[in-house]
Amino acid sequence: MAIIVHGGAGSIQEARIPAARLGAEQAAKAGWNILVNGGTAVDAAVAAAVALEDNAQFNAGYGAVLTEDGKAELDAGLMDGETLNVGAVAGVRRVKNPILAAKAMLAVPQTLIIGSGAEDFAQQRGLTMCEPEAMIEPCVYRRWQELKQKNSEPTRITDPDEKHGTIGAVAVDASNHIASAASTGGVMMKVPGRVGDTPLAGAGFYAEDGSGAAACTGQGEYFIRLVIARRAVEFMSHGYTAQEAADACVKLLTERLGGDGGLITVDAAGTVGFARNTQSMIYAYCLTSQTDPVSGW
Amino acid sequence: MAIIVHGGAGSIQEARIPAARLGAEQAAKAGWNILVNGGTAVDAAVAAAVALEDNAQFNAGYGAVLTEDGKAELDAGLMDGETLNVGAVAGVRRVKNPILAAKAMLAVPQTLIIGSGAEDFAQQRGLTMCEPEAMIEPCVYRRWQELKQKNSEPTRITDPDEKHGTIGAVAVDASNHIASAASTGGVMMKVPGRVGDTPLAGAGFYAEDGSGAAACTGQGEYFIRLVIARRAVEFMSHGYTAQEAADACVKLLTERLGGDGGLITVDAAGTVGFARNTQSMIYAYCLTSQTDPVSGW
Repeated sequence: MAIIVHGGAGSIQEARIPAARLGAEQAAKAGWNILVNGGTAVDAAVAAAVALEDNAQFNAGYGAVLTEDGKAELDAGLMDGETLNVGAVAGVRRVKNPILAAKAMLAVPQTLIIGSGAEDFAQQRGLTMCEPEAMIEPCVYRRWQELKQKNSEPTRITDPDEKHGTIGAVAVDASNHIASAASTGGVMMKVPGRVGDTPLAGAGFYAEDGSGAAACTGQGEYFIRLVIARRAVEFMSHGYTAQEAADACVKLLTERLGGDGGLITVDAAGTVGFARNTQSMIYAYCLTSQTDPVSGW
Repeated sequence: MAIIVHGGAGSIQEARIPAARLGAEQAAKAGWNILVNGGTAVDAAVAAAVALEDNAQFNAGYGAVLTEDGKAELDAGLMDGETLNVGAVAGVRRVKNPILAAKAMLAVPQTLIIGSGAEDFAQQRGLTMCEPEAMIEPCVYRRWQELKQKNSEPTRITDPDEKHGTIGAVAVDASNHIASAASTGGVMMKVPGRVGDTPLAGAGFYAEDGSGAAACTGQGEYFIRLVIARRAVEFMSHGYTAQEAADACVKLLTERLGGDGGLITVDAAGTVGFARNTQSMIYAYCLTSQTDPVSGW
């Protein structure tokens, strides 16, 4: 059994590190508690992702960054490595926990629903809905106002002044089933409708029993173009450990396209990996041999 | 140099075959004419895709199928194998040629824009816009009315009575650059906001110079879960011919998930491939050694 979570690649202000590490540790522990009680990798990854979405430290769920027209448009994706089932939503504004909408999608034939169609789906499934404004955290809104006055372009994840924090969680359970979850608000000042890698299976997340799982964070466009999460799982299917696969993907990202970001991985043997080419990536993990969360950035 | 196009996997009524083959041949020829005049693989794939979108025989652009609420919601994706640039749009209702919006996306940092954001983008780039009703073909609308009265579920691509015809084109040019294009209206009676594999790089389309390109058609959810287009290119990167890669992907699709569909491929050596596990898949291709289009179903 193993779970690793991340709270986004980028440049983190030093003052924010302790709270972000604590949030990541709590999320990893929430997932771990499910695993040790016989729960599934899917449930563990989702529990960790919900904890990270609900934490305003991170750019997912409440506290996410805003589009150039001041809306929080959220994306999330989830994959069950046993069945290869995928659930994902993109561009939702009224769903309190987008990862729970992704989870509900596992039960229907569709894999990806976008926009108001996804919101209607979430509502029909009884998920907690909210007004779009309720997803907006005051500090994020003030930052958006500042940028708006300057007519700012979409920010890059390497800007040290910006909020980062796409979140992700990958887990392997006692039955050796594997899952991957990812959730984000995207990039600050993004064009309305812009979707990054987070809700796209293969790009932002992927999981396959017997090989492993990955969840990505960074400038999403590069992860889409290289289908990074799928490549990480591909590397593990060829015998790479989780750490070797994560390193190989960051190398590819850097050398092939000069993209910025990172990823977390778990392999079928229950080891975890994490790698980034940015200044920081908040992470935390629990393993059978290390049940108290280990975290870093 | 080579180009191959498809007009969708499914079950085609015999009476429709001649017109569909002719449409595919014309599209392949439109792309081929660009290649022989020194044009790029991207331009050739786009020209072929535009011809297929504009042809009401196919389920893309004008004549696409409708959502359960009677709207044509269109998706398209394009990839340049030289730069690994991706452009894609999903859920657009007012863009006459979604593949041209995908092409315009190649010039901006974003890779995927959805819904009204994508429509605004297309309009800003000067593309031909239309009223949503203008994309709806009368026969498709009558069929939608029939299904609506029956409270029909989303149709499956194996239904012989339904319109199929996601379209795709892959090409390799005289400079050995490779491209892939895909466009669709999805499945009839789809849930509003449902997105299949067509606008998702790695799932519905992928291209990488030195290896090859693929464009997929079928029950999109299976193609997302297996990241089929990326797998096809992966097979070609390991030395499979275009045909071997297409066959391997259909085998995977069938054996792993029991999914329905097919794909077209081109490899770096300029050979083409096509495979399906459905009753039919309209295709046409031109090669250096075969400049008049060859077609089949």
